[in-house]
Amino acid sequence: MHAIGVDIGGTKIAVGVVDEAGRILAKVRRDTAADDVASIDRAIADACTELAREHEVGAIGLAAAGFVSPDRSSVLFAPNIAWREYPLAQRVGDLLDVDVPVVVENDANAAGWAEFRFGAAHDATDMIMLTVGTGLGGAVVVDRELVRGKWGVAAEVGHMRVVPGGHYCGCGHEGCWEQYASGSALVRDARQAAVANPDAARRLVELAGGDREDIQGPHVTQAAQEGDPLAIELLATLGRWIGEGAASVAALLDPELFVIGGGVGAAGDLLLLPVRKAYEAQLSALGHRPVAQIELAKHGNEAGIVGAADLARR
Amino acid sequence: MHAIGVDIGGTKIAVGVVDEAGRILAKVRRDTAADDVASIDRAIADACTELAREHEVGAIGLAAAGFVSPDRSSVLFAPNIAWREYPLAQRVGDLLDVDVPVVVENDANAAGWAEFRFGAAHDATDMIMLTVGTGLGGAVVVDRELVRGKWGVAAEVGHMRVVPGGHYCGCGHEGCWEQYASGSALVRDARQAAVANPDAARRLVELAGGDREDIQGPHVTQAAQEGDPLAIELLATLGRWIGEGAASVAALLDPELFVIGGGVGAAGDLLLLPVRKAYEAQLSALGHRPVAQIELAKHGNEAGIVGAADLARR
Amino acid sequence: MHAIGVDIGGTKIAVGVVDEAGRILAKVRRDTAADDVASIDRAIADACTELAREHEVGAIGLAAAGFVSPDRSSVLFAPNIAWREYPLAQRVGDLLDVDVPVVVENDANAAGWAEFRFGAAHDATDMIMLTVGTGLGGAVVVDRELVRGKWGVAAEVGHMRVVPGGHYCGCGHEGCWEQYASGSALVRDARQAAVANPDAARRLVELAGGDREDIQGPHVTQAAQEGDPLAIELLATLGRWIGEGAASVAALLDPELFVIGGGVGAAGDLLLLPVRKAYEAQLSALGHRPVAQIELAKHGNEAGIVGAADLARR
Amino acid sequence: MHAIGVDIGGTKIAVGVVDEAGRILAKVRRDTAADDVASIDRAIADACTELAREHEVGAIGLAAAGFVSPDRSSVLFAPNIAWREYPLAQRVGDLLDVDVPVVVENDANAAGWAEFRFGAAHDATDMIMLTVGTGLGGAVVVDRELVRGKWGVAAEVGHMRVVPGGHYCGCGHEGCWEQYASGSALVRDARQAAVANPDAARRLVELAGGDREDIQGPHVTQAAQEGDPLAIELLATLGRWIGEGAASVAALLDPELFVIGGGVGAAGDLLLLPVRKAYEAQLSALGHRPVAQIELAKHGNEAGIVGAADLARR
Repeated sequence: MHAIGVDIGGTKIAVGVVDEAGRILAKVRRDTAADDVASIDRAIADACTELAREHEVGAIGLAAAGFVSPDRSSVLFAPNIAWREYPLAQRVGDLLDVDVPVVVENDANAAGWAEFRFGAAHDATDMIMLTVGTGLGGAVVVDRELVRGKWGVAAEVGHMRVVPGGHYCGCGHEGCWEQYASGSALVRDARQAAVANPDAARRLVELAGGDREDIQGPHVTQAAQEGDPLAIELLATLGRWIGEGAASVAALLDPELFVIGGGVGAAGDLLLLPVRKAYEAQLSALGHRPVAQIELAKHGNEAGIVGAADLARR
Repeated sequence: MHAIGVDIGGTKIAVGVVDEAGRILAKVRRDTAADDVASIDRAIADACTELAREHEVGAIGLAAAGFVSPDRSSVLFAPNIAWREYPLAQRVGDLLDVDVPVVVENDANAAGWAEFRFGAAHDATDMIMLTVGTGLGGAVVVDRELVRGKWGVAAEVGHMRVVPGGHYCGCGHEGCWEQYASGSALVRDARQAAVANPDAARRLVELAGGDREDIQGPHVTQAAQEGDPLAIELLATLGRWIGEGAASVAALLDPELFVIGGGVGAAGDLLLLPVRKAYEAQLSALGHRPVAQIELAKHGNEAGIVGAADLARR
Repeated sequence: MHAIGVDIGGTKIAVGVVDEAGRILAKVRRDTAADDVASIDRAIADACTELAREHEVGAIGLAAAGFVSPDRSSVLFAPNIAWREYPLAQRVGDLLDVDVPVVVENDANAAGWAEFRFGAAHDATDMIMLTVGTGLGGAVVVDRELVRGKWGVAAEVGHMRVVPGGHYCGCGHEGCWEQYASGSALVRDARQAAVANPDAARRLVELAGGDREDIQGPHVTQAAQEGDPLAIELLATLGRWIGEGAASVAALLDPELFVIGGGVGAAGDLLLLPVRKAYEAQLSALGHRPVAQIELAKHGNEAGIVGAADLARR
Repeated sequence: MHAIGVDIGGTKIAVGVVDEAGRILAKVRRDTAADDVASIDRAIADACTELAREHEVGAIGLAAAGFVSPDRSSVLFAPNIAWREYPLAQRVGDLLDVDVPVVVENDANAAGWAEFRFGAAHDATDMIMLTVGTGLGGAVVVDRELVRGKWGVAAEVGHMRVVPGGHYCGCGHEGCWEQYASGSALVRDARQAAVANPDAARRLVELAGGDREDIQGPHVTQAAQEGDPLAIELLATLGRWIGEGAASVAALLDPELFVIGGGVGAAGDLLLLPVRKAYEAQLSALGHRPVAQIELAKHGNEAGIVGAADLARR
């Protein structure tokens, strides 16, 4: 059965028809306004209706950045869109021509599910996805099932505390993992390094156009690929935090595979080798247990569409 | 169906017949030698045979402190008994008169399962058990299923890292949660407090018979119940570490209930209130999500027997 | 001998004639522009000349926020004024009518010296001043002498690291003491608490006029004085960090007295009692050594003038 | 003037005549019993009398491991010898034939003073000595004067806290610097590494004779010199903690030189280079201030004798 997946961003939506092998057969985009939730409903319904004219679809999955109710019908809270206990599935369903089930999924869960079904984890039964972007998102698959939690808010891995008294997080707490293992952390660390040691940061500042406050993640990746020692160290530090945190997750869930997604994947082995090294160094009972694989995600930005569509038809 | 549960300790085994309501109908004990694994097999088989003469049983579950293979047949590694990739289920089965399935379970998982089925979590679908004893053990139930992990070693919550550069753990790493949230941590902290501030520790040392190195957990509990400020603070510190770590677990798994087991439960609210306070204070997205319950375990030492028996008949 | 002390701020200077008992006999102010260093020189010289007409003075001391050369002649670097290896003493001296020695002192050192000579530490021989303001400044007096360090930059207590991997500091490093023990830390913590637990922060947000981002230090102090539990806890946390860090300083320098200056002193015992408690709890070898006093500063904003004047005549 | 220096250990004393250039002209040893303080007095007096027969000496300095009163007459408390407020200078003086002043000094201060006057710091005015042995001792010289503190217990650098919630220390507190920057920490870390990763520790365990609990500091040094990656990393970790802590000390005291003493110095650049790298990486205001030198001590075991003698004649 084909299904439609919708990736709902703050200012635009991406909608695709996904086949049973996880391929996107057709795709459309719409711009939206984050503070006008009714217009988002309409944009989703329009796009789905358009695609459903050309393709027979059996289900629609909506990937939303926010807390999703465990029955997959509502968004309880979203940081960037004005949804509060919002019955998104029904609102969209009411606007559709076609009569197919509509479900809502957390976007990180959808992306993780795409990797589990059709990507880096397609051979696995127990997987943790870590999406290292602006923040640190995640998805948990246990025994082939997505773990949503009692109230739908599982897999918020970025808010596990890794440093008591550590960096403040937007959530109001100190030391959240995403303050150490995210693209934002990488950028923050790079800018701070340029304060603490301007000489070492010369290449990074140059790539940023001369102002250390303009350093971005890709500058670090580029400099590291050129062999810049500070940039290599910054990626290694990021990798170390990812790997050490992953070892804590493994203590709890014993997965066979971690999948690392997000833009930092562009750094390739400059990131991945430090992740693996730190994971192994920090894993309890090394030698008495197998060591989980750690791989980069196969899907890029379209993982949300693919995962939402596939979850909808289950 | 009745089943037999076996709790295998380092120097003795406890064996019971458990009915479908989780009640123990009969129980026997045997002494064993930790370094003679064949004698342990025989003791288990003897006790099971004895009980099976009087009770019709359909399955036998063995609760072992160690890593158990995901097919529930073998102990991969045990810290206190000389099992290394040991096919315990078959060895015991070969010695039995009766022909019933024999399975092995990790002891903390068995105890957690007893609470889930017949104890503090019997109404729950998603539960985390934290057994605060010499170490910190755990069990994870997601959507009514016990999470064993890919290789059977999930729920080793005590080895999640909570303090980088923190106290060393027997596992070789620093900052493991069980170094902060266990009876051993409580005792260690109490003894250290008696070094750092002998005046404040006077009552604790007195209860210990005069030597601070003899302070034990029950002394702390008793002193706290008498109103001793240091003892109350020590329990509050223990509770804070339990609650803060639980908030990290909740970020990952979103359970509806934490069950706190182990001897420290004797402290009651002196422990439980600080746990709850710290959990709530550290929980991300408070106000946008329900707050999990945190309760003391209902079963005591017999949880391993009950849980192993019940898991064996599934 | 009377001396003139000059407190050089970013946008204004305050100049006073100070007698041998530390009293300010006369005082004038001038506005200045931080990026026009020559105008600052002239403003200082004008004000000093004016006061010297009415009062016989034997020396002039300039208190500057920045690194001061050990010979007290130059500002090596200042964060807020465009001084870089700037011969401030000579530049001001060249513009003066009167022929008196001019020396430069770090402003925190000057303020600490005022407390040592005429304030809370006037009976002491070994003192640490901790100025808890926007940042955390300090002054060290050992055996009645101000410790300037080999290159004039001693007593930068705020940049001792207290939390590895902790909050970032403007200096480019993580975990600096001033990120935990300063007015800025208090305000940051209060605003974060309002994110993490809006209910508990209701009174603080109300005092701030409804927006948590407008919470300031005096709101915390006021709420605490009203009995607000969160505000009391925030001050206690600030006090704990001050006291615990002071215990590390005491391990190194064994002073008889800590003097706490800065605006947070307005909180009185709500701050001071937690400082003392944490200091004592964290002090090594308690019971085998005397415990240093911890007191609030006696001088307010005029400490820089008084201390600079007094240091100039030595 | 020649002077006698006495280094008082737990089970023996070493006594030497020291000339004004810091050379030891003659030396004797005596065995002692730690619990018989009168016999220690006699052993010291005997040895001094013997040496004074052959050499004209003007003063005697006693280096003691413990808290020494600021007037240099008494030992207030010693961890390894049964001194409690013990008037050591007078007791020894009463037993002497010769009439020369006798003073007591803390042994780490004495060793630091030897380096300051005749060793690695002989050109310096402001120095910090860090003695990295079983624990972490220190000595502070500010403007050519030894800093003893108000009550004689300054320079206990090992008890500055560097990790909140970190390793417990014999002093009763957590996270003391000496738990990270000492020979004991090196050995503990090596043994733990052998638990966490037995493969990597194969060479270390081999050098220790097969039992990881027998690993000692020299095994780590030897393995590192052979190129063993784990041993090199262990020394680098030790060096990092030394260097990062030194940066905190520099924030407070701005010395021109750190001198690293103790047995770990045998590792040479394998230790020293990581110390310097971490120091520079962690130093606040790098680029706006000179960077202190970090050098190995020149004196070995005899530093206590030399320093105590030289301090006695001042």
